[in-house]
Amino acid sequence: MNTFPSIEELKNGILSKDRMALAKAISLVENSMPEAKKKAQGLVEALMPYTGKAQRIGITGTPGAGKSSLIESLGLAYIQNQKTVAVLAVDPSSQKTKGSILGDKTRMERLSKNDQAFIRPSPSKGYYGGIALATYEAMLLCEAFGFDVILIETVGVGQSETMVADIVDMFLLVAVSGGGDELQGIKRGIMEMADLIFINKVDAEPAQKDIYFYTDLKRAIPLFRSDEKQWTPPVIMGSATTENHLEDLVNDIQKYFTHIEKNGFKSQNRKNQNIKRFRHLLEQRLIDRFWTHANEYPLVEKLLTDVKNGEVFAPQAVDEILQNIG
Amino acid sequence: MNTFPSIEELKNGILSKDRMALAKAISLVENSMPEAKKKAQGLVEALMPYTGKAQRIGITGTPGAGKSSLIESLGLAYIQNQKTVAVLAVDPSSQKTKGSILGDKTRMERLSKNDQAFIRPSPSKGYYGGIALATYEAMLLCEAFGFDVILIETVGVGQSETMVADIVDMFLLVAVSGGGDELQGIKRGIMEMADLIFINKVDAEPAQKDIYFYTDLKRAIPLFRSDEKQWTPPVIMGSATTENHLEDLVNDIQKYFTHIEKNGFKSQNRKNQNIKRFRHLLEQRLIDRFWTHANEYPLVEKLLTDVKNGEVFAPQAVDEILQNIG
Repeated sequence: MNTFPSIEELKNGILSKDRMALAKAISLVENSMPEAKKKAQGLVEALMPYTGKAQRIGITGTPGAGKSSLIESLGLAYIQNQKTVAVLAVDPSSQKTKGSILGDKTRMERLSKNDQAFIRPSPSKGYYGGIALATYEAMLLCEAFGFDVILIETVGVGQSETMVADIVDMFLLVAVSGGGDELQGIKRGIMEMADLIFINKVDAEPAQKDIYFYTDLKRAIPLFRSDEKQWTPPVIMGSATTENHLEDLVNDIQKYFTHIEKNGFKSQNRKNQNIKRFRHLLEQRLIDRFWTHANEYPLVEKLLTDVKNGEVFAPQAVDEILQNIG
Repeated sequence: MNTFPSIEELKNGILSKDRMALAKAISLVENSMPEAKKKAQGLVEALMPYTGKAQRIGITGTPGAGKSSLIESLGLAYIQNQKTVAVLAVDPSSQKTKGSILGDKTRMERLSKNDQAFIRPSPSKGYYGGIALATYEAMLLCEAFGFDVILIETVGVGQSETMVADIVDMFLLVAVSGGGDELQGIKRGIMEMADLIFINKVDAEPAQKDIYFYTDLKRAIPLFRSDEKQWTPPVIMGSATTENHLEDLVNDIQKYFTHIEKNGFKSQNRKNQNIKRFRHLLEQRLIDRFWTHANEYPLVEKLLTDVKNGEVFAPQAVDEILQNIG
């Protein structure tokens, strides 16, 4: 990878808060070429001692809830409180099109112009595991750079929330009331994950539909949450654009972090995440290695054809292969 | 598994259209005990020559769209046309709670009482791969029994659509207009998969909101579909309860099957599904075997601890393990 600076250069650049070095380093971790991957791994390893200090926050939203506006306003509020903010996006994209639906800096114009903020659109290519690792590494790079808060935005469809849940300390849901049964539109898994819910687009005087939605959420939360964190997710009615109750949001996020630091959840959760990431990586590598090796065996090719044509039932073929190879 | 009849008994029962034998056989494929799994595999293998003849249809719906009512009405319409119908449900459930949200026969009261139909609620336990395989096996058992049409209902959240897409020939989406931007509520992946869209709860004289929704869908479809099947998904406005345009639905499903049989898509798609299933199974078995084996090595345990505590970066630990074990 002659196009990338050396590990040493990138490391020193990041530690001396050179934004260009950070941007290049993130491009490196997003690059799927073997040489780039090796260099990226070396860089992240070298920076490990400088990581771990940021508040890692995942943000998801129901369609039309104004997630980008909220991230922008929240980011600016942090900056006003003398904190620096990095915004990353995760978009595992659609299985079929592999295209990024997103989304670039222009969505957060004020925040992107602020030199206390760093906004990075999502890597749109690659397989699920690759994107998950790249996002995690990008987050570590931002931590080594010294950002106080890392906002990780879920983009698009499908598995992005699960992916983000595996790297953050806190999950924030942005929703909006529409007068109907909005609760139905929120996926069960999101309700389980959300540590704080912000009902966006609510003026100082909430409309009746907002109050209904608020009440529904308050009622639903205990049904979905496990007691693991000993935390009841606050629900805030406010507005990203008028900044109504935005301060409450910032305060409640802080309360949450104080809480999970005190009760040990933050540290335990990060440990669990580390283990999970390690297992996934190892399993992916095992599978890759098996296929590289297996393609040399005529038996595998024969069974693949038989299974494909429906002549052999898959579990039977698997038994036969494992008895003979591996 | 003394509680289960022999493979021979179940096989003969199914081939002689004994519904109790079918129910027992499905319980067997859903059972995760090693002995049951072995027996289930033997049974499905023995029945393979009798499978493959049904129309395999996946059905998904937006919240509140009346999916169950549509399945019931569609099932009864098939029976009126002298076809037999099996309804299976897939519910990979929430990662966290492992609970089934669903759902039983009482949702489809008229259909469940009809002796030309067979309704089976979803297996609610087990991991993703296990449920996927069990549903596929249950479908094969229903085919061997002789059902002409198999409706596979996606239930709950998350990955059920992907799972169902991997075993069916056709995907049907049930939606309902609400006067807002319903398109946003339909996940992109579903739009890509849907071979037919039924706008439910529309009377003989469609409301303005239905016509808007219809127009939106018609406009959106070409943006989402690949040309692989050479098929433009029809959009039908109708009603499951009043049976308005239900006949059109039945006819369009038949047109679709005639089309994919003629252009070879059905056969090719099933081959691809077989390969995918085979690969997944094999990889899962490889991973299981690795962990059984790896736990004997002190190196693995040491590295797991270091990774967990954030002292070693996961990819580094994976490198070390693969160089020493496996």
